[in-house]
Amino acid sequence: MPQPQETDVVIVGAGPVGLFAVFECGMLHLACHVVDALPHVGGQCSALYPEKPIYDIPGQPAILAGELIERLQEQAAPFKPVYHLGQQATALTREDDGRWRLTTSAGTEILAHAVFVAAGAGAFGPNRPPLPGIEAFENEGVLYSVRRKADLAGKRVVIAGGGDSAVDWAVALADVAAHVYVVHRRPQFRAAPETVARMQALAAEGKGVELVIPFQLHDLEGVPPRLGGVVVRDLDGNLRRLEADVLLPFFGLSMDLGPIAKWGLGLDRSHVKVEPTTCATDAPGVFAIGDVASYPHKLKLILTGFAEAAAAAHAAYAIARPDQALHWEYSTTKGPPAAAA
Amino acid sequence: MPQPQETDVVIVGAGPVGLFAVFECGMLHLACHVVDALPHVGGQCSALYPEKPIYDIPGQPAILAGELIERLQEQAAPFKPVYHLGQQATALTREDDGRWRLTTSAGTEILAHAVFVAAGAGAFGPNRPPLPGIEAFENEGVLYSVRRKADLAGKRVVIAGGGDSAVDWAVALADVAAHVYVVHRRPQFRAAPETVARMQALAAEGKGVELVIPFQLHDLEGVPPRLGGVVVRDLDGNLRRLEADVLLPFFGLSMDLGPIAKWGLGLDRSHVKVEPTTCATDAPGVFAIGDVASYPHKLKLILTGFAEAAAAAHAAYAIARPDQALHWEYSTTKGPPAAAA
Repeated sequence: MPQPQETDVVIVGAGPVGLFAVFECGMLHLACHVVDALPHVGGQCSALYPEKPIYDIPGQPAILAGELIERLQEQAAPFKPVYHLGQQATALTREDDGRWRLTTSAGTEILAHAVFVAAGAGAFGPNRPPLPGIEAFENEGVLYSVRRKADLAGKRVVIAGGGDSAVDWAVALADVAAHVYVVHRRPQFRAAPETVARMQALAAEGKGVELVIPFQLHDLEGVPPRLGGVVVRDLDGNLRRLEADVLLPFFGLSMDLGPIAKWGLGLDRSHVKVEPTTCATDAPGVFAIGDVASYPHKLKLILTGFAEAAAAAHAAYAIARPDQALHWEYSTTKGPPAAAA
Repeated sequence: MPQPQETDVVIVGAGPVGLFAVFECGMLHLACHVVDALPHVGGQCSALYPEKPIYDIPGQPAILAGELIERLQEQAAPFKPVYHLGQQATALTREDDGRWRLTTSAGTEILAHAVFVAAGAGAFGPNRPPLPGIEAFENEGVLYSVRRKADLAGKRVVIAGGGDSAVDWAVALADVAAHVYVVHRRPQFRAAPETVARMQALAAEGKGVELVIPFQLHDLEGVPPRLGGVVVRDLDGNLRRLEADVLLPFFGLSMDLGPIAKWGLGLDRSHVKVEPTTCATDAPGVFAIGDVASYPHKLKLILTGFAEAAAAAHAAYAIARPDQALHWEYSTTKGPPAAAA
């Protein structure tokens, strides 16, 4: 049996909040290991929308999700985190000495003073619309995310849904795709008003976007995996056929905490309950940060997760270094090792 | 009597957290006015250390304080905040209709649904060492902050203090100044260990930095405002004279809430007490965010203030738009007006 690896903090999830937690721990001289089921860092930012701009990172008026991840990785790098990627955190048990033992699906064992659950939406997956035979079209005629705009150049695209993803991609693909249909069951969109207005303007001006409202998805046509058309239906049952090469169903992500749900932590509807000022769970030494963490008035924003990472790092310091008072005031202007060297 | 100006949110303090609050409010379609006693935006970042790098802004491995302010201003700009600079917020009273009336030292009156106190350390000023006649040297021989490194090129500099500012500037000025003395009363520094190590290495290698320990400031010599030397004293009363052109006393900032202390808000040692998940004070519609806000386990980090700004903006929305449910999920990928247009 291999020897477990030892560290100060093990972070479950290598998304933006997990990566920033490495930096915050590093500034307090706490070493980190990071486990993620995906084969790369960045979580959803890298897996689902690396080319999508994010507007609410403080001090970054617009940054692509993939670029944000690169910067966070760069910021964490001086602290030499050990990444265990492509393996899911499966079991978490407490040792007699108070430390936690995390086991992964690859059999890796890590002993740590503190655990940060930064699992985002957990093992996330798209909500699949209930269309017969849709699985056979997936990855070619049906895509649940757009990794590169260029993949859709010249294609006839049907976007289904009324949220941010549907509206953002309608606007983003208008000048790339051959034609973009937006299928939604009602005129109201649950998305940024400015972007909705932009989409509506593109539709009104006939600039590549056509709103198909109020309609819902009804059937797929074509020879799987190649799509030929999407049949939509209005509330009275009238059908309309849209010629299409690609369907993008944007009905949100289903969230599945996976093994984390069985670690005995207090949960609140697939989220881990925490004390908001330290992000401590009800298990001593186990913290939850970012979208997976739940408390009253919680905002699921990346920037909120960043602050939670800082709070958890400071709370973890007291656990990992119980004999050392933290001489710390403003760390804002402290440099990491590379910057100081 | 001039008509008061009306807005959704009035923000007291145009530092980084106040600026980011404009953006967060703007994303929720709340208009903002911003009041600051300084003649420019940016608070301490602009007034005290515009050329100092900050390392813990998420996704920005190193950014100069002044550049951070520029980016935050750019991020806030699409929402057209109205700035009232060079005037101190003096009085805050509640109207019969539930709104707040803020009055400034210039006589400006602003009516708003919500007030964000983002006053940082309040009306801040440096702690002045108790040296006879020091006032006469200030702004030439004695500086409490370095606005531009180049101002100290070729000068003999005495840095006094043992915190981050003392250590950071010792390292930063080593290759610019003619000589840097660091006067501190004990060998331990209360600063980032990596930077302390770097300063000690520079001193050991004779590279422009000389540690004068354990010594304290005793007297100033020269013809005011021109400094000629600094006399220091050890614990036994032995004196030593350091030839110097400039003394930089870094003994922290004194904090003075000023008029804010008289607004009837619940205080905790010169900070405003808030509920941590919304940043609400005990006055309905008045919030405090950033360094001025106090709650258990509070971290005085800019990035924490950013998250507090988001929390307060969402809580203020319910007050400013009581009849409108906020259809909001992830705003991360919503663009501001300029980005969407």
